[in-house]
Amino acid sequence: MSNPITSTLSPEAQKVAGAALQGSLVDLIDLGLIAKQAHWNVVGSQFRSVHLQLDELVTDSRTFVDEVAERAAAIGVSPDGRAETVAKTASTVGFEGGWQQDGTVVAKIVQNLAAVVTALRARIEATESADPVTQDLLISITARLEQLHWMWQAQQA
Amino acid sequence: MSNPITSTLSPEAQKVAGAALQGSLVDLIDLGLIAKQAHWNVVGSQFRSVHLQLDELVTDSRTFVDEVAERAAAIGVSPDGRAETVAKTASTVGFEGGWQQDGTVVAKIVQNLAAVVTALRARIEATESADPVTQDLLISITARLEQLHWMWQAQQA
Amino acid sequence: MSNPITSTLSPEAQKVAGAALQGSLVDLIDLGLIAKQAHWNVVGSQFRSVHLQLDELVTDSRTFVDEVAERAAAIGVSPDGRAETVAKTASTVGFEGGWQQDGTVVAKIVQNLAAVVTALRARIEATESADPVTQDLLISITARLEQLHWMWQAQQA
Amino acid sequence: MSNPITSTLSPEAQKVAGAALQGSLVDLIDLGLIAKQAHWNVVGSQFRSVHLQLDELVTDSRTFVDEVAERAAAIGVSPDGRAETVAKTASTVGFEGGWQQDGTVVAKIVQNLAAVVTALRARIEATESADPVTQDLLISITARLEQLHWMWQAQQA
Amino acid sequence: MSNPITSTLSPEAQKVAGAALQGSLVDLIDLGLIAKQAHWNVVGSQFRSVHLQLDELVTDSRTFVDEVAERAAAIGVSPDGRAETVAKTASTVGFEGGWQQDGTVVAKIVQNLAAVVTALRARIEATESADPVTQDLLISITARLEQLHWMWQAQQA
Amino acid sequence: MSNPITSTLSPEAQKVAGAALQGSLVDLIDLGLIAKQAHWNVVGSQFRSVHLQLDELVTDSRTFVDEVAERAAAIGVSPDGRAETVAKTASTVGFEGGWQQDGTVVAKIVQNLAAVVTALRARIEATESADPVTQDLLISITARLEQLHWMWQAQQA
Amino acid sequence: MSNPITSTLSPEAQKVAGAALQGSLVDLIDLGLIAKQAHWNVVGSQFRSVHLQLDELVTDSRTFVDEVAERAAAIGVSPDGRAETVAKTASTVGFEGGWQQDGTVVAKIVQNLAAVVTALRARIEATESADPVTQDLLISITARLEQLHWMWQAQQA
Amino acid sequence: MSNPITSTLSPEAQKVAGAALQGSLVDLIDLGLIAKQAHWNVVGSQFRSVHLQLDELVTDSRTFVDEVAERAAAIGVSPDGRAETVAKTASTVGFEGGWQQDGTVVAKIVQNLAAVVTALRARIEATESADPVTQDLLISITARLEQLHWMWQAQQA
Amino acid sequence: MSNPITSTLSPEAQKVAGAALQGSLVDLIDLGLIAKQAHWNVVGSQFRSVHLQLDELVTDSRTFVDEVAERAAAIGVSPDGRAETVAKTASTVGFEGGWQQDGTVVAKIVQNLAAVVTALRARIEATESADPVTQDLLISITARLEQLHWMWQAQQA
Amino acid sequence: MSNPITSTLSPEAQKVAGAALQGSLVDLIDLGLIAKQAHWNVVGSQFRSVHLQLDELVTDSRTFVDEVAERAAAIGVSPDGRAETVAKTASTVGFEGGWQQDGTVVAKIVQNLAAVVTALRARIEATESADPVTQDLLISITARLEQLHWMWQAQQA
Amino acid sequence: MSNPITSTLSPEAQKVAGAALQGSLVDLIDLGLIAKQAHWNVVGSQFRSVHLQLDELVTDSRTFVDEVAERAAAIGVSPDGRAETVAKTASTVGFEGGWQQDGTVVAKIVQNLAAVVTALRARIEATESADPVTQDLLISITARLEQLHWMWQAQQA
Amino acid sequence: MSNPITSTLSPEAQKVAGAALQGSLVDLIDLGLIAKQAHWNVVGSQFRSVHLQLDELVTDSRTFVDEVAERAAAIGVSPDGRAETVAKTASTVGFEGGWQQDGTVVAKIVQNLAAVVTALRARIEATESADPVTQDLLISITARLEQLHWMWQAQQA
Repeated sequence: MSNPITSTLSPEAQKVAGAALQGSLVDLIDLGLIAKQAHWNVVGSQFRSVHLQLDELVTDSRTFVDEVAERAAAIGVSPDGRAETVAKTASTVGFEGGWQQDGTVVAKIVQNLAAVVTALRARIEATESADPVTQDLLISITARLEQLHWMWQAQQA
Repeated sequence: MSNPITSTLSPEAQKVAGAALQGSLVDLIDLGLIAKQAHWNVVGSQFRSVHLQLDELVTDSRTFVDEVAERAAAIGVSPDGRAETVAKTASTVGFEGGWQQDGTVVAKIVQNLAAVVTALRARIEATESADPVTQDLLISITARLEQLHWMWQAQQA
Repeated sequence: MSNPITSTLSPEAQKVAGAALQGSLVDLIDLGLIAKQAHWNVVGSQFRSVHLQLDELVTDSRTFVDEVAERAAAIGVSPDGRAETVAKTASTVGFEGGWQQDGTVVAKIVQNLAAVVTALRARIEATESADPVTQDLLISITARLEQLHWMWQAQQA
Repeated sequence: MSNPITSTLSPEAQKVAGAALQGSLVDLIDLGLIAKQAHWNVVGSQFRSVHLQLDELVTDSRTFVDEVAERAAAIGVSPDGRAETVAKTASTVGFEGGWQQDGTVVAKIVQNLAAVVTALRARIEATESADPVTQDLLISITARLEQLHWMWQAQQA
Repeated sequence: MSNPITSTLSPEAQKVAGAALQGSLVDLIDLGLIAKQAHWNVVGSQFRSVHLQLDELVTDSRTFVDEVAERAAAIGVSPDGRAETVAKTASTVGFEGGWQQDGTVVAKIVQNLAAVVTALRARIEATESADPVTQDLLISITARLEQLHWMWQAQQA
Repeated sequence: MSNPITSTLSPEAQKVAGAALQGSLVDLIDLGLIAKQAHWNVVGSQFRSVHLQLDELVTDSRTFVDEVAERAAAIGVSPDGRAETVAKTASTVGFEGGWQQDGTVVAKIVQNLAAVVTALRARIEATESADPVTQDLLISITARLEQLHWMWQAQQA
Repeated sequence: MSNPITSTLSPEAQKVAGAALQGSLVDLIDLGLIAKQAHWNVVGSQFRSVHLQLDELVTDSRTFVDEVAERAAAIGVSPDGRAETVAKTASTVGFEGGWQQDGTVVAKIVQNLAAVVTALRARIEATESADPVTQDLLISITARLEQLHWMWQAQQA
Repeated sequence: MSNPITSTLSPEAQKVAGAALQGSLVDLIDLGLIAKQAHWNVVGSQFRSVHLQLDELVTDSRTFVDEVAERAAAIGVSPDGRAETVAKTASTVGFEGGWQQDGTVVAKIVQNLAAVVTALRARIEATESADPVTQDLLISITARLEQLHWMWQAQQA
Repeated sequence: MSNPITSTLSPEAQKVAGAALQGSLVDLIDLGLIAKQAHWNVVGSQFRSVHLQLDELVTDSRTFVDEVAERAAAIGVSPDGRAETVAKTASTVGFEGGWQQDGTVVAKIVQNLAAVVTALRARIEATESADPVTQDLLISITARLEQLHWMWQAQQA
Repeated sequence: MSNPITSTLSPEAQKVAGAALQGSLVDLIDLGLIAKQAHWNVVGSQFRSVHLQLDELVTDSRTFVDEVAERAAAIGVSPDGRAETVAKTASTVGFEGGWQQDGTVVAKIVQNLAAVVTALRARIEATESADPVTQDLLISITARLEQLHWMWQAQQA
Repeated sequence: MSNPITSTLSPEAQKVAGAALQGSLVDLIDLGLIAKQAHWNVVGSQFRSVHLQLDELVTDSRTFVDEVAERAAAIGVSPDGRAETVAKTASTVGFEGGWQQDGTVVAKIVQNLAAVVTALRARIEATESADPVTQDLLISITARLEQLHWMWQAQQA
Repeated sequence: MSNPITSTLSPEAQKVAGAALQGSLVDLIDLGLIAKQAHWNVVGSQFRSVHLQLDELVTDSRTFVDEVAERAAAIGVSPDGRAETVAKTASTVGFEGGWQQDGTVVAKIVQNLAAVVTALRARIEATESADPVTQDLLISITARLEQLHWMWQAQQA
């Protein structure tokens, strides 16, 4: 099907913003799936605290996933958030299978948050001239993920 | 790590119920991802209605995913809901990339629901003697998915 | 019109479950209409208590009616809940016209609840092998109606 | 039982207002049953929209049913809303059994709304001198049903 | 102070509507005070039911009091709802001091409701040509009080 | 397009009621725009109180606008609430541009309310025989606007 | 009727506490009626602020009235809150009839609050040894009325 | 384990307050268990009213239980609310096993409330000089239980 | 008193189901009392987390207690949930008096949950043929307690 | 009146930002009026879906109108949102009078959204150096309108 | 400005109560600022639990600050809660700058709570004869702070 | 303790953003304390309006304080919001002790808002290249404070 959604962006700007959004989409979907995986498999004396905290991360991830995908659609770019696409292209660092000790979970979540934030920071720069509306969205997501990064990292001290 | 969670089920019953739950888990995660993909990419005169209806399917899928994964944990089986596991083992029929006409979306959702329900029906039988608690959960999920199957199918008439 | 809704049940199982659901549907619609009739026509020193309690029965009946009818649709059976069908096929014991003394109302509601529960108990048995999903719904309805039966009967002591 | 509820209306006024209310009662109960029947049996591409819209009609009908019946009681007239009375005396145009195409459903609902509104308009005139309080209730019900009539009819254009 | 609030009514119409509203005001304030008095002093096996029902009457009375007083202000007539004015001019039948048996309370409330409704019926007629806006308010209050009159009277059967 | 919405009113009654509704529609839209304009431009020691009070007027105006326009549609008359129509046909007295002192704002709102109420009073009379349902709506709007008229006028004393 | 409600207080303590409660009851009912009277009749540039503030006083008064009356009942003393009793025994300073300028209203409310607080202060002392439970209630009411006294008085500066 | 929670009270005051709180704790737990027992076993024409009223008593009892136990902890005294401790040390009058007629239930609840209030009255005196904070809590609990005592007793008249 | 509540179960089925419900009742009441006891007496670095988690267990226990007791009543069996009955017949493993370290509390709660689940599993089997409605309730309770068992046990890893 | 509101912006920046805001204000008011006009006049099989979707656009428009006007006030520029100003200066493409087919409505809304977004994009650039606070507001409005533009356009595919 | 707020207290009582309230005010403001400081700077494995718990302390402190300051105003004493006054006169033990380990935070909060409670206990005694209303407020604040003191201290065991 | 929280910013950018945030933190804490001080000490005919408006400023200030402090933490900078730091480093203009006339309060709040906005404007520029995420937060705070500045200033006209 030819593209049914037009865009107010120039083709070039649309390409830059579209790539930034598609990259963010798979990262955030995977972040949510990793957080759920950890939510179910964490064990240790901090179980309850980490278990609950992970669901807050899931909620944030899901909200951002929708905002990012619908922003892509809004500029005429079809978003792809299918399992296989996520498995193949996400820039997260992943999560081990099986039960995981709470300290290990905290460390892994910190690493995944750092990886996603680093990628987002680059996309904020990339979209500055291409599309300030897309950039504004990425800034707001980064603000929250950096806040969460601090909160998870604080538990390692 | 050796298994930190004990179960009141016999090892055999645990194995049967665990397999039924792990299979349901990946199916339901994928159903949710497919519904979101469709939610963003549907076009056509029925856009708004289908767009909204898909988010209800997402909400149900996510609720069921959590119930199934936590039931697995409750019987001492570590659930695996990571993107790669989902991409490789789900028994859904998938969803095409790119923008999709509303009629096509309805048909594809009906097929995916039918596939998941068929798998669940087999697991209801399999868990009857192994674990009535797990069976009861699968029955309640099937009840809702069959209701949704009717509602989506009714749009094809 | 030929049947637009397919079913995952075998034709035989569909027939058994469909009959159980259609029978329950008319019983529950009539139970709700009777409860409303009593709600408006009860008099006596217990008026307010019985008047309020009847509306709770109406609410439950209406919820069950919808669940039963939509379960029928989900297995591909068109439900029939029209006034004439209800008037002709319900297995309730009915309700007298005109103002009714509170004691009479309590007795009549106990009888109607008992009649509906008896019919439901038979349908629970009938659907056990035909469709455990339908059976589970009938069990949950029976659980609530038997609870209400106790509460209404307790007022006769 | 002799009439336990007295009225501030004259016997004649009571008779006129009582007849208007009893007639409205059965019409509105049947309108609600028809809307539910349609809610379960509609099929077609507009399924979801019509299915939801019908439940709004059910909700309104039930609210009006209660207001009308309790107004009858308030003027000392015992209301009769039993299934058989509804089946025999309602001035609605009815609804076919079995699955129904969405366009057919819309047309049938428009006809039933028109029939009920016509009857209500006559009762508004009839009660003007008999009881302005009853008239005021019938006006408010007519206002809403005419609004719904427009909304359903607009779909036929 | 000279009258600071002007009215869109003619002086005559203002006088008629103003008198109807001032009369209703004191009746409804007193009805609320009587209901509270009864709420605190009722005893007997129906204590709890009557106690709760009286508070609903208090709530309705207070809502109507405010509507009536503000309608008077809206047409430029200063409302007078002070204790002494109420004690001297209300057309209610009053309430005995001290503890009261539940049956006595029910009977007394029925009488007070009947007295207020009778006065309101006369005012509905009186305001018909003077001010349809005021009349509409009195009709809505009467509708509710007649409904309550039935509910309280039903307990005497 | 020929008229797709039929009416239960006679052509003549429809014309009278339609004119009353269209006139009310533009008046109420303009009242809402004026109230917003005043909400933003008021200055003076009473700023906060008047600023908040104006938003209540906006809320009421918007509610009435919708009720009036949908009543027009319900009787088969297409409502016209576009900016140009409002600018050309509203019977309000308008509002000066630029910052306005609070006392001036209060006076101007009182004048605009009075103008709209006067027009509504005439329409209540005009619709009495044409359509009691439309009349009832205009009465309820007038009741609220006269209440607001008192409240705004009281501030001038 | 002989006293149906027994008390855990000695007859003497019951008499002291009962008198304190009955006195507070009439004061607080009258305070609420006065506040409503002022709510309707206030005019002036502070109309809206004073109008709203008065309704908060009404709400508090009504809450306290109920607490005081039910405390009396709890110690076996029948409370008397009828209009005539209030008109004859309240220790408030009253309120003029007719429209009142906002400054006058503020001053009058300050005086009434002061009068009620003074009476309550004496009752706090009187009930200290008679009944600490009653005293605690009077303290909590005084705390709120003194807070309101400050807020109303602050407007006079 | 040596006491891990210090107290700002002197050892003697701590002992007095601690004893008052531990005694209140078991009384209130038992009051809640008795109310639930009665809630399930009451029969008679007042069933519904008494059944609902008992749940309000359960709710209050549970709230007070928590407040009392946490106050004990706050002053460094370990509270003991285990079943055996309750069964052995509560100063309530108990409740018969099996179904109970409504009149019997009312009488028994009145007796249990009276017993708990009497014990609380003594503890209010005992804690006056030991700890005014504990005393204040016991006063607030007594206030509510005496109110409930009146309400239950009123039903015996 | 002879049994005032009839049952739709055969005497034998009633006996089996009744015994299963009475046994579950005392276990669940004791589980709630133990959880509250632990809620107040836990100390250690995990205090807050365990303190909060215990209240969730209390809430669940109380909900289940009510469901089980009312199911007993619904089948005509008088439930017994008095303190002494609980102290003497519960199959829980109990809880030590005095302050308890958080690790000890977690271990004790895991043991108590395991004991109750084991007993429930046996009752699920026992009621399968006697009463599927009762069995369904026990399955739903077991599902939640096994989930909690996992969550508490996960903290021991 | 001389300007009573000072600004932290330089006069030049204030002029640029003020012009951008005044232009956005009239566009957004008109967008809201157009959406309401369409909401009332749409007909066709998609009536209900489009009717509801238009009210979401009205809600968004009204929120943005208030934000834009209050931002103008915040920088010391008096906003002008009167009907005549809107009718004369809005850069929207307008809306035909009379009943409109659903497809026509969708197309017209897409065109109006596109026109407003184009104007906003230019104002985002214009305010970048003049006032980043104003720019941020315009970015957030554009983000939402472009999202809506996609959703409306998707229905045309 | 001479004192615009009068008091029902004697000058001496006013002085004693005023001093107690001003002292409590600065202590509670500082407690809130310290809790926020700790909320942001805590690190360690208990980060999340302590971080959340501190915000509950902030909420309580802020509520108490307002109650205390408004009580001062109510007795005619101007409260002083400015930063400098707090910094110079609070009787808290302070909080170190920079990141803080969770164990250190818990210990410091326990010390600050103990310091504030000790000061409050003295003020409860001081105000007993001066003003029971003020005393009652200080008792309620102490009750909550002692409860929090236990909860924080329990984490040190 | 060495810094436990890492940052994705360069050391230089971190220093610039950290300084901007710490400066904003103390300004906003002080703004909140000043607003509360004014909330308690304002007198005059506008008391109620100003008293309420000040609490809205308190609420906003507190929200911004938390956002700013947590943003500092998120970039690895320990925030300092203690009373002494606030008293010594805030760039507000302060507030006089004792009761204050309403006009004086309005003027003082306008000055404090202006001072904080001026400082924020400088920090928006300073952080533009250092950290767009921090800048975005400061822009959103400035937007609201400039809005409040207008609203307070409007009262001076």
